[in-house]
Amino acid sequence: MAGGGDELKLLGMWASPYVLRVKIALSLKGLSYKYVEEDFKNKSELLLSSNPVHKKVPVLIHNGKPICESQVILQYLDEAFPDAGATLLPADPHERAVARFWAAFCDDTIAKASQQASSGKTEEEKAEGEKKVVEALEKMEVGLSECSKGKPFFGGDTVGYVDVVLGGFLAWVRAGDAMKGVKRFDPATTPLLAAWAERFVELDVAKAAMPEVDKLIELAMARMAGAAAAAAAATN
Amino acid sequence: MAGGGDELKLLGMWASPYVLRVKIALSLKGLSYKYVEEDFKNKSELLLSSNPVHKKVPVLIHNGKPICESQVILQYLDEAFPDAGATLLPADPHERAVARFWAAFCDDTIAKASQQASSGKTEEEKAEGEKKVVEALEKMEVGLSECSKGKPFFGGDTVGYVDVVLGGFLAWVRAGDAMKGVKRFDPATTPLLAAWAERFVELDVAKAAMPEVDKLIELAMARMAGAAAAAAAATN
Repeated sequence: MAGGGDELKLLGMWASPYVLRVKIALSLKGLSYKYVEEDFKNKSELLLSSNPVHKKVPVLIHNGKPICESQVILQYLDEAFPDAGATLLPADPHERAVARFWAAFCDDTIAKASQQASSGKTEEEKAEGEKKVVEALEKMEVGLSECSKGKPFFGGDTVGYVDVVLGGFLAWVRAGDAMKGVKRFDPATTPLLAAWAERFVELDVAKAAMPEVDKLIELAMARMAGAAAAAAAATN
Repeated sequence: MAGGGDELKLLGMWASPYVLRVKIALSLKGLSYKYVEEDFKNKSELLLSSNPVHKKVPVLIHNGKPICESQVILQYLDEAFPDAGATLLPADPHERAVARFWAAFCDDTIAKASQQASSGKTEEEKAEGEKKVVEALEKMEVGLSECSKGKPFFGGDTVGYVDVVLGGFLAWVRAGDAMKGVKRFDPATTPLLAAWAERFVELDVAKAAMPEVDKLIELAMARMAGAAAAAAAATN
């Protein structure tokens, strides 16, 4: 696996945007690996022992040593395999800092706003979440200019760290758009980001790794039905 | 400043644990810098233009280029000044990943639990926050073993990335302990972490940079009085 006697195993879940990041990064680096799909209702002993703190995927296991958290894994891949295929973070220290800043923004701001938009306790909370998503994407539009300097990707001419981090969300963005009849990454408000998203999903590495939008919609509807049933049961 | 014609400026606020991290890191690296205290009620144009996304300190400005977010700044210092004093992250890729994991845990889990413990909307929420803090510190005890491998610091024999990230909280932990009559970093439940905290606050770099606990208590009480007054005004 992975060449040079390295053994890589990825513990994942097909619908996870965070796992998708790692799949895309491994593919960009041309590293082969064994993929293990986890069952969320019955987590494997390997997952529980590899990530005892959060008990979550993705976990990358490299020659028996686990690495947890998608952004930590992406940076690990750059550092453990410096000569393999693409390098995700730029070489220049300031550009690396800017990339880390915007990658953190994806998880701290965009993901949280999206979470509130879909799982807010009230309709008001959800609407507030939607508003925060729009505001966050407007800021991310600036981030794209800052990172890409007019080139097609956050990484410049090629896909880099922030591309993979934000790109991991795109399948769920499309599922959410279809379910709500909206368009995030809207060309009217965030033209650069909208064009970037179109480019990203057309990449071979993205097409090969991204889950089908229809299946994500099915999963989301099943989860909503489950949550509604649980809420109904709780009030009976 | 900083030698070699580098000019470093740190925009900070004396009570911020995140600014404290950067002060300690700069000191460990032996880098000189100009410190600019920000007024939170009247943020400077320089802060607003340097961190337009979050409008928060710390911001480090290196030869005119801003770097925001404390963990991003710490990694930047390692990468921009590889030959200056201490190196915060270890050299080995897996050890770097483990350090980044636990540093993320400090901000994603410990800081959030602490926030809930002090600013929860109800007494029940606050009590739940306190419970989460205790659970998080018990996990961090394991993190200390994992990173230090029996040595005095997360960084081993010397202070490293996770030491600086967690150590930044210690002045506020002491202030909180004094105000609530509790002892976080309790030798009874987290003996390694308790001993680590004692060692950390005795470091010259920590003693020189840490704000006085009494002043933090004063600030916290003024904030609480302000919040209570605002709440009272809102109900009138």
